[in-house]
Amino acid sequence: MSIGHQTLHLIDPFLFIRLLYIAGQYDNTSNAVVCVFIAVGVIKNSSSRAQQTLINDMTDSWQECMNHCVDVTKQAGKIVREALEKDIAVMEKSSPTDLVTETDQRVEKLIISAIREKYPTHCFIGEESVAAGAPSVLSDGPTWIIDPIDGTTNFVHRFPFVSVSIGFTVNKEVEFGIVYSCMEDKMYTARRGKGAFCNGLPIKVSGQEDITKSLVLTEMGLKKDPEHFKTVMDNIQKILNVPVHGVRCPGSAAVNMCLVACGAADAYYHQGIYCWDMAGGAALVTEAGGVIVDITGGPFDLMSRRLIVASSPRVAQRIAQELTVFPCGRDDAPCSH
Amino acid sequence: MSIGHQTLHLIDPFLFIRLLYIAGQYDNTSNAVVCVFIAVGVIKNSSSRAQQTLINDMTDSWQECMNHCVDVTKQAGKIVREALEKDIAVMEKSSPTDLVTETDQRVEKLIISAIREKYPTHCFIGEESVAAGAPSVLSDGPTWIIDPIDGTTNFVHRFPFVSVSIGFTVNKEVEFGIVYSCMEDKMYTARRGKGAFCNGLPIKVSGQEDITKSLVLTEMGLKKDPEHFKTVMDNIQKILNVPVHGVRCPGSAAVNMCLVACGAADAYYHQGIYCWDMAGGAALVTEAGGVIVDITGGPFDLMSRRLIVASSPRVAQRIAQELTVFPCGRDDAPCSH
Repeated sequence: MSIGHQTLHLIDPFLFIRLLYIAGQYDNTSNAVVCVFIAVGVIKNSSSRAQQTLINDMTDSWQECMNHCVDVTKQAGKIVREALEKDIAVMEKSSPTDLVTETDQRVEKLIISAIREKYPTHCFIGEESVAAGAPSVLSDGPTWIIDPIDGTTNFVHRFPFVSVSIGFTVNKEVEFGIVYSCMEDKMYTARRGKGAFCNGLPIKVSGQEDITKSLVLTEMGLKKDPEHFKTVMDNIQKILNVPVHGVRCPGSAAVNMCLVACGAADAYYHQGIYCWDMAGGAALVTEAGGVIVDITGGPFDLMSRRLIVASSPRVAQRIAQELTVFPCGRDDAPCSH
Repeated sequence: MSIGHQTLHLIDPFLFIRLLYIAGQYDNTSNAVVCVFIAVGVIKNSSSRAQQTLINDMTDSWQECMNHCVDVTKQAGKIVREALEKDIAVMEKSSPTDLVTETDQRVEKLIISAIREKYPTHCFIGEESVAAGAPSVLSDGPTWIIDPIDGTTNFVHRFPFVSVSIGFTVNKEVEFGIVYSCMEDKMYTARRGKGAFCNGLPIKVSGQEDITKSLVLTEMGLKKDPEHFKTVMDNIQKILNVPVHGVRCPGSAAVNMCLVACGAADAYYHQGIYCWDMAGGAALVTEAGGVIVDITGGPFDLMSRRLIVASSPRVAQRIAQELTVFPCGRDDAPCSH
């Protein structure tokens, strides 16, 4: 960079940031340097928090994390694909549908160690780590939320929808999401404010606004609590009776969200899933032009264990209107796992 | 062939047939000649029906039809794939889930004309032809049973499971089945007595015998008759409560059968589908080592509009035990469409 930040300050600091940002687009290797340069050169000239936030956004300081995440997800996906071609050693966790495999644990360890090596101060919430007793609390710090194999029952049976899902949050907001659908060999990526992609090609939601022309995804699961199970089935009947075009149950929350993101379905709802099932896909849906709301139709809460995603606010609210809500706890509640 | 049939008769006619059959395996072009030769050379030496059946089986006189069917299915699949990449002009048939598209009709016309050109005396049962008033009666003659797009709702939404399905029957028995899963680009083929294949590689069912370790496929559909709809949903709950590993609803009967055939699911059941949804997949399941029975657990009837397919007789019978049967008519009943 040939222009010093003093010169910049004399002209217009925000114009200069924009120029640097544009330059950074064409020179990824200099992104980290640009980031530090701006932080020193501009933040000292302004103490306002709004300006600082703007700076963070415009320099896209998390792009490097995202690039690393794509590489790590590729490695993880390779292990999952290889395991799918071999015999799978299965052990039961708590019920026949809550299967966890050696591969599941191995993949999570690989992902966390590969990220921790590069970002030792970052936080992690991983399905297998939480199952082993780690806390599941979302802080303001940079946090990687990992589902090493989303769709473990599918994985055990080699049913085609199995994914590695990683979401990355800062200040409790999802900054980017990566979902790799292993058997379909589809790498879904989305960075906040920069759109959603499948294997590098932009994707978008269907834009459907009419619930009666919608294909809706959900899961039936197996509830130990007979009352919840009854509500899940009653909710499906209510949605079918709207009527909709159809209801499909593919068996992977992260893939379901990607299917909505690329317009292959118009909505997906679920009560009782976890933050690692939702974090990666959440970025995909919003960046593809869709909406993500709470099961009640209110604002989405990543730790609430429930969501509706849809191609349009109208379809999301229409689904919320039909559903009976049941208490399913929170990811960050004490002893929730 | 250098050996005359008189010589053969003096030695052992069946040994000779076996030799010819083996030779035919390595010389496909001479199959038709071999077939005629055997018919003249051996049938005149024996009038028993058992021997004639054996001859028909061993010469595999329908292999040429099957080869032609694969070619035609490839062409049909190409049209479906192209249509999926364009906007789809949709018109409604009888309900929002019973969609039929211009492509659906175009593909069936292409398939029938390509087959009729080569086999002008053969019979046809096609979804779109029957919808347009053609009879749906299975005769003893060679009959092509065609679903140009199995999973039309999926097709309209570009949901990944969409297939072209063709089954071929003689004496009301399925001789071969071809299912092309268009978006997955998977060509499933099965010839009676010769195994099942996906893209040329042999496939087999999971062999699962324990219902509690099974992944079960079915569809929810939208029933205009509230009582049937309630039974469909109650049946799903009964299966989930067995318990099983999970229930998935992918939305294409033919693909569901192929998923069981390749071991990605352990069973599939359905009431209210049609012969063109089942004919192609039926060959896949049985040739992959699976079973196909009536929803009651009795013998399968292609025109009965209902079936259970499974990885083992035990799983099939356990599912039959759970299900409540409702009348759904027959394909060959007068005015059933």
